Amino acid sequence: MSVTAAQGFTAAGVAAGIKDSGLDLALVVNQGPRSAAAGVFTSNRVKAAPVLWSEQVLKGGSVTAVVLNSGGANACTGPLGFQDTHATAERAADVLGLNAAEVAVASTGLIGTRLPTEKLLAGVGTAAAELTAHGGERAALAIMTTDTVHKTAVVEGEGWRVGGMAKGAGMLAPGLATMLVVLTTDADVEAPVLDRALRAATRTTFDRVDSDGCMSTNDTVLLLASGAAGVTPQEAEFAEAVRAVCADLALQLVKDAEGASKDIRVEVVGAATEDDALEAARSIARNNLLKCAVHGEDPNWGRVLAAIGTTSAAFEPDRLAVAINGVWVCRDGSIGEDRSLVDMRYREVTITADLGAGDASVVVWTNDLTADYVHENSAYSS
Amino acid sequence: MSVTAAQGFTAAGVAAGIKDSGLDLALVVNQGPRSAAAGVFTSNRVKAAPVLWSEQVLKGGSVTAVVLNSGGANACTGPLGFQDTHATAERAADVLGLNAAEVAVASTGLIGTRLPTEKLLAGVGTAAAELTAHGGERAALAIMTTDTVHKTAVVEGEGWRVGGMAKGAGMLAPGLATMLVVLTTDADVEAPVLDRALRAATRTTFDRVDSDGCMSTNDTVLLLASGAAGVTPQEAEFAEAVRAVCADLALQLVKDAEGASKDIRVEVVGAATEDDALEAARSIARNNLLKCAVHGEDPNWGRVLAAIGTTSAAFEPDRLAVAINGVWVCRDGSIGEDRSLVDMRYREVTITADLGAGDASVVVWTNDLTADYVHENSAYSS
Repeated sequence: MSVTAAQGFTAAGVAAGIKDSGLDLALVVNQGPRSAAAGVFTSNRVKAAPVLWSEQVLKGGSVTAVVLNSGGANACTGPLGFQDTHATAERAADVLGLNAAEVAVASTGLIGTRLPTEKLLAGVGTAAAELTAHGGERAALAIMTTDTVHKTAVVEGEGWRVGGMAKGAGMLAPGLATMLVVLTTDADVEAPVLDRALRAATRTTFDRVDSDGCMSTNDTVLLLASGAAGVTPQEAEFAEAVRAVCADLALQLVKDAEGASKDIRVEVVGAATEDDALEAARSIARNNLLKCAVHGEDPNWGRVLAAIGTTSAAFEPDRLAVAINGVWVCRDGSIGEDRSLVDMRYREVTITADLGAGDASVVVWTNDLTADYVHENSAYSS
Repeated sequence: MSVTAAQGFTAAGVAAGIKDSGLDLALVVNQGPRSAAAGVFTSNRVKAAPVLWSEQVLKGGSVTAVVLNSGGANACTGPLGFQDTHATAERAADVLGLNAAEVAVASTGLIGTRLPTEKLLAGVGTAAAELTAHGGERAALAIMTTDTVHKTAVVEGEGWRVGGMAKGAGMLAPGLATMLVVLTTDADVEAPVLDRALRAATRTTFDRVDSDGCMSTNDTVLLLASGAAGVTPQEAEFAEAVRAVCADLALQLVKDAEGASKDIRVEVVGAATEDDALEAARSIARNNLLKCAVHGEDPNWGRVLAAIGTTSAAFEPDRLAVAINGVWVCRDGSIGEDRSLVDMRYREVTITADLGAGDASVVVWTNDLTADYVHENSAYSS
């Protein structure tokens, strides 16, 4: 499955010694016949070296290989860090017989430390020697950081597939979540179609995962097409497959978020516009007090209203309504059904906020705030 | 001290039974000869009933009495909640021989529950009977919620004083922090001067305390002038005294924030404009991952850069610099001095970010994110 579910792709995951133990370097290669690609990157203005590099590579609309490493983000590492990324692409190009301008690079781990260049470059060679059409799982394992499970997904079309892998467990916030994602397809699709499908998909999936409001310097989502299936699906059908794989992987990120004990589905309905709905949903999803209350299984709807009240969305305070797991605990901006009717024992919690101002709606996913989250992000550098 | 440090004010704090135990209702009365007043309220669009009421009262520029309660915010309680606030002002007016339009009301506690009206109104009568010129301390005690200490401050002018009390320990974020504050002065100052002094003071004090990024529905800051000292200070001198009392109280809020183990002074310097500096400082102050790192005494400057990168402030990534407790761990957007030189053992931690884009600067205070914060905000409704 993973990135080798689609025909025309090989992959490998190796232990290059970048981390103290375990797999830490992945290589994904498009064997063709086509090598179309699209990419979406973090909107953080402080971008890691591999993001700066890969953004340039993607401008050509063609990517033949992707090198990904865990164990270090190579962000805020200055010109030397950029040289490390460049050398990585050059090494991959050398061993695979490509041009470095066809090689994308992605990194994840601690910001502000150099990568061990020799180990990294040697690992690229090792990975190239281990490439197989079944290497997708090991590649998915090699990009894990604080993830507790590796994440893969696949959707079948008629005679073609879209598959992919993702990593991400913290610093999950829009534009995008902190994550590396590689999607592959054997459909015979050109770069502009890939680009439209990928942007449309990320906008409503990865961009609506907001675990902790923190935006990464390294987020990268790539979609590579080999054309090996020899089938060109309808654009809408293809776009829906890409969306479905992205939605699957995005939800896997939420379910594995650092320290989380609840997955919170924030639905904002009755908004005047989608932008209004999204602003309100993000404000709710980022409210630390509410996230603590959900952790405590406390249907504290006042914190939902307080979060909505900080936005510029169109609403009247006395028309707001809030349901928690289907119980409308707030109606007309005031006390609604008995809060003791709300059952919050299960991992998934749905918070529905009705702005009473129109027909637009969105869903944003977040997590609760827990002592374990604090521990994971204070006990050591990550 | 507190609100009775200035001449011409009496106060009381009583146990009205709104909370299960302890003082929960405060009354502050301006005995004159003047009764000028100014007020600043939450900018949350979901406003508690007492905020809606007191905003109207303040429009007249005159307040003679303030009733404050803990044990319930009276927010999101609909028309019945507003009637409770109105009845409170009416009762205070009755027992004090005033008009209800001269009585401000402030409430704090859980959002979305009705106050026990009978107990509240009886408490107003009890408090009126206990008013003294030494009641400021008990009034300050009666407005505490999750505060562990009561907060008071006083500044002396030549023949006049500005004093005050504050409560607030969570939901501390700009516009304003979650808090109730009453400031009093015996200077002979008219309402427009009070208003200018109060707005200028809150903008750089309470508005720059951002403990947890959550904005309250109930924030209220009132400044009452009795004129009892018979002295009219220079406006600049008076404004500075008001600012100094606000700064003192604001820092007391930070130091008592729920579950915090560190007070973090976020200084942004070298910004193109004050707005840019403030946007960057708030983004840093609200970054959960950074707040966890500070809790762990980890000088994780990458999270500072990642936070700055999400803003629209003018900067070039390769010109950013960050110091933690004076050690410039990041220079030119990359690795600077050895991070092991940073000593973060003490409660106060200073993070300095230089945007390298101009001369503007601001200071915002926040706290670390701790397991205790999660516990305080998940173990019970607040």
